[in-house]
Amino acid sequence: MHDIQVFAQEVFASQPFSRFIGAELTESGPDHAELTLIIQDHHKQQHGFVHGGVISYLADNAITFAGGLALGGNALTAEFKINYLRPGVGTKLIARAQARSAGKRMAICQCEIYTVDGDSPKLCALAQGTVVPAG
Amino acid sequence: MHDIQVFAQEVFASQPFSRFIGAELTESGPDHAELTLIIQDHHKQQHGFVHGGVISYLADNAITFAGGLALGGNALTAEFKINYLRPGVGTKLIARAQARSAGKRMAICQCEIYTVDGDSPKLCALAQGTVVPAG
Amino acid sequence: MHDIQVFAQEVFASQPFSRFIGAELTESGPDHAELTLIIQDHHKQQHGFVHGGVISYLADNAITFAGGLALGGNALTAEFKINYLRPGVGTKLIARAQARSAGKRMAICQCEIYTVDGDSPKLCALAQGTVVPAG
Amino acid sequence: MHDIQVFAQEVFASQPFSRFIGAELTESGPDHAELTLIIQDHHKQQHGFVHGGVISYLADNAITFAGGLALGGNALTAEFKINYLRPGVGTKLIARAQARSAGKRMAICQCEIYTVDGDSPKLCALAQGTVVPAG
Repeated sequence: MHDIQVFAQEVFASQPFSRFIGAELTESGPDHAELTLIIQDHHKQQHGFVHGGVISYLADNAITFAGGLALGGNALTAEFKINYLRPGVGTKLIARAQARSAGKRMAICQCEIYTVDGDSPKLCALAQGTVVPAG
Repeated sequence: MHDIQVFAQEVFASQPFSRFIGAELTESGPDHAELTLIIQDHHKQQHGFVHGGVISYLADNAITFAGGLALGGNALTAEFKINYLRPGVGTKLIARAQARSAGKRMAICQCEIYTVDGDSPKLCALAQGTVVPAG
Repeated sequence: MHDIQVFAQEVFASQPFSRFIGAELTESGPDHAELTLIIQDHHKQQHGFVHGGVISYLADNAITFAGGLALGGNALTAEFKINYLRPGVGTKLIARAQARSAGKRMAICQCEIYTVDGDSPKLCALAQGTVVPAG
Repeated sequence: MHDIQVFAQEVFASQPFSRFIGAELTESGPDHAELTLIIQDHHKQQHGFVHGGVISYLADNAITFAGGLALGGNALTAEFKINYLRPGVGTKLIARAQARSAGKRMAICQCEIYTVDGDSPKLCALAQGTVVPAG
């Protein structure tokens, strides 16, 4: 693993909310990051689907890490937008974010969130946002 | 309390993720809803601020309830966008969402999220999204 | 008029596309801007309503000016989001944007677009976006 | 050309604003659409770059057509979000939109806008939005 990926894992491990919700940083690279969440009952809303807030957390955080990796350091999501495409069901959610451009002052990232239930991941949500260097 | 507000409280109470994260539906009306969250350590990210994913959950869910109240029944947030304005610090977060228009097939809502620390609430994030009837 | 408002008018007057489309900067202040467009047939889409692209131009540009005024100089809209609430009809469109926060590196603005037809302006679209200093 | 693509060309040809701005529908298929605009001086802002409002028009309209093709008929963009990645320069702009999901009541589309100057198109903006059936 490259230094920046080790750094990403350390940052992720130091996020109390990510531990509380139970997410993991399962993949990272120079301009992308993947988060995985094993779906549990406490992640759900009133209809038994994963709450949109859980999916938006995954989008927000995957975008932060993809952008931070592209920018080369600590970073914050400044804004993002998410469209929910289908209910969050199944055994786990995977959020894959990628920086589509990165300059000195910001990176623009897209994120695809998939539900996994058996073999075939299904696209569950799409997000797009801006990451800026922290501090 | 009107029937639709009682209904909103029942729906909120049946959201496992809202209980898990510790939010409350503290106010509702024919086209608006307010959620409150007492900030705890497990809501934070690596810098000690409230995680963006917590704030985006509040935006998503406050928008769902404001839109559902305006539409008159069970509803889903179809999409939203959020801008983070300042770090989430203090003792609690308050999210106030309002439907700005509502038709048969959708309601458009805006949401302001405030941090409270002592006396003066400070604007922390702004969100805007679309709510559609469920099912 | 304050210097910054004179500057805003000069910048607006030097935008070829704003002249081409026929918009005017009808109001400005330390953190807000208003654009007005007299609706003409060439602004319309296939159903006789104002094209969404015209409304999104007004949102983009009103946000740029509100953010630039708040930031105190030349500025660019980095991103924005728009929801269309009702068809663009009537005699003119008015876009009012306001900076809700402004720091060194960005301003976050909201914009309301109204249709005017006779007396009562009607809310036609809502937008929210980020403005950054130019250059 | 399939019937739905012929229909798309007819709809496009009946948009006064698209003719006024000078765009063309250069490609379409069952779930995607491409718009092309030859850049002219009247498309520009004060720094000599293409105005963001021109780029947002292309995003809005390419998304409408991709979504309408996926939904199978007349359609409207209900909302979208756009991030500007680099200045609009060169000889032309190309907007490519694709429906990523389509149901009965909406299609979710993404759009990439490229600047062309000589050989290599460069990514200029990214957009994402919701299309609903018209009427």
